[in-house]
Amino acid sequence: MQGKYRALWLNDDDFLEVIDQTKLPFSYETKVLKTTDEVVTAIKDMTVRGAGVIGSVAAFGIYTASMEVKSYDELKEKVKFIRESRPTAVNLMWAVDRMMEYLKDSTNLVEDSKKYATELNDEEALESQNIAKYGCDIIEDILKKKDKKIINILTHCNAGWLAVIDEGTALAPIYEAKKRGIDVHVWVDETRPRNQGASLTAWELTQSGVNHTIIADNTGGHLMQIGEVDMVITGADRVSANGDVANKIGTYLKALAAYDNNVPFYVAIPVSTFDFDIKDGVKEIPIELRSEDEVKYMRGVDCDGVVREVLITPKDSPAINYGFDVTPARLITGLITDKGICEADFQEIKKKFN
Amino acid sequence: MQGKYRALWLNDDDFLEVIDQTKLPFSYETKVLKTTDEVVTAIKDMTVRGAGVIGSVAAFGIYTASMEVKSYDELKEKVKFIRESRPTAVNLMWAVDRMMEYLKDSTNLVEDSKKYATELNDEEALESQNIAKYGCDIIEDILKKKDKKIINILTHCNAGWLAVIDEGTALAPIYEAKKRGIDVHVWVDETRPRNQGASLTAWELTQSGVNHTIIADNTGGHLMQIGEVDMVITGADRVSANGDVANKIGTYLKALAAYDNNVPFYVAIPVSTFDFDIKDGVKEIPIELRSEDEVKYMRGVDCDGVVREVLITPKDSPAINYGFDVTPARLITGLITDKGICEADFQEIKKKFN
Repeated sequence: MQGKYRALWLNDDDFLEVIDQTKLPFSYETKVLKTTDEVVTAIKDMTVRGAGVIGSVAAFGIYTASMEVKSYDELKEKVKFIRESRPTAVNLMWAVDRMMEYLKDSTNLVEDSKKYATELNDEEALESQNIAKYGCDIIEDILKKKDKKIINILTHCNAGWLAVIDEGTALAPIYEAKKRGIDVHVWVDETRPRNQGASLTAWELTQSGVNHTIIADNTGGHLMQIGEVDMVITGADRVSANGDVANKIGTYLKALAAYDNNVPFYVAIPVSTFDFDIKDGVKEIPIELRSEDEVKYMRGVDCDGVVREVLITPKDSPAINYGFDVTPARLITGLITDKGICEADFQEIKKKFN
Repeated sequence: MQGKYRALWLNDDDFLEVIDQTKLPFSYETKVLKTTDEVVTAIKDMTVRGAGVIGSVAAFGIYTASMEVKSYDELKEKVKFIRESRPTAVNLMWAVDRMMEYLKDSTNLVEDSKKYATELNDEEALESQNIAKYGCDIIEDILKKKDKKIINILTHCNAGWLAVIDEGTALAPIYEAKKRGIDVHVWVDETRPRNQGASLTAWELTQSGVNHTIIADNTGGHLMQIGEVDMVITGADRVSANGDVANKIGTYLKALAAYDNNVPFYVAIPVSTFDFDIKDGVKEIPIELRSEDEVKYMRGVDCDGVVREVLITPKDSPAINYGFDVTPARLITGLITDKGICEADFQEIKKKFN
């Protein structure tokens, strides 16, 4: 299993290869993305997903595109499709912009784009390692303050190594805690409608030997009421200048419950997730509408081991599928970034990062 | 379809017959419950569910049990199993207690228990009709205040005619609104892990021609943020003397979001749902733990029309399944009861009902 702790890599033929995350947790399969079209499709159909991984795939996607073109201008045209493949992903925009800036004066697009994409990937790995350290310091503080031996952390969606190189964002402090010998248990939100928690996070944590329990998205509030959650850590797709957080739909509900029960609510992000152009996240961040079929159909494995998709609603009942919501900064205890902890506050963010 | 707008009835042979709600929305099937054991199993495995329907089934279950016994004392022994079939359902306890009180001096247990169960059923129908009227008056008020033509109501789980004789609790005001010619649209929470919203509520509303859209449980907060929810109505399994509401897991999260966005949050209940012995619902109401398989497996119909159960998580990842949570009274705008609207407040409730 080449990609055991990596979501993407360059294979022996120097093509971009990725774990097909739509097949998890039922089977481990990889896909080679040889054309720009295949890269765009992989992002759109969520073969790859997660803020960081989408950024990395976009960067290597530009390398893939560079093999199909003769000039920077032609590359720019191809890259438009990559840019438009996922409107909410600020990391994708950031990676594309940076790559294209680097390549402006390149005389060898293929070689240079490969080099820059690799660099970007390595930087991201370093960011994840820093998030791990800063986040784990908070875990140790909470344990000390509560005089507890086990920490119960709730997470929503998947922000581990399937989402962000190298060990993720939200899950990085958890992996670090395990390394430091801390007894850690994770409440894994199922994360309907695509079930990234129940499938990807639970699979990742199983691979990594981390104790966890899957819960329906409805359950977190009750667990907080009865004192079974010591902290929440989620990732984010975009954080506005005022500290509002766009993340997987349902994050806002968990933040409300955490606030109501005095449970610390942290968001783990690389600094590249900030979108300083957006002053008010709740009002301004656009929310992706996805297919109703993601709500109406469910994929799983039957008693004979066959993966099947089943309709779980009345056929004619319509459904609506918003991919994200925005959690107001006032509900967030802090942002765990690769440059340290920061309050979710306009002035603080400006002082530290802008 | 004999039970089109009824969840249970006495069939031509005078046996209790119910809609098998575990088969919905994929097929319409009924079950005849001929023994106490069958009644207990039907409640436990959720062939029948919903506060009111469980109460009615328990009442007719005592009639069923009466056919198996020779004395009131023997009946009492049988009825223990009915009483223990669903620990959170205060309606069930209430129905059982009332039936057994009525039957204390009966000289014909079979005839009398049938008569009393029918009476209890008829009373419940009247309660539902009253809830419909009081609730619909609130809908009209909200429309007037907002100067709107369409009302968007969010509901969680199923509290319609599959749950409570005759048109439900939470859904009764909605059916009444349709009768009064109001343009009503319902946001149907999927209600994981058993999907009572996506299956039962969506099916019921389809049968009754009410506009609706199914959403993942994660979506309600975002819809409230963008102004797409005018009010929330849920049912309840138990309401404590101070107005705390035990209802399907996840209700609390929606109440938090409603409060945060100034969306009126109503709970529709017959007065029998109050448990005056419980002073503090959040602290005292026991929460049922159900099988983890309800989280890990999902039932649906495949492309060939075959109903299948599929595993949706890694096989070895554990899950936990709390059936209910408790919404604190402070988050509730009002209780829509069959005796009128009441604040979720200890003094108010005491003054009106105790």
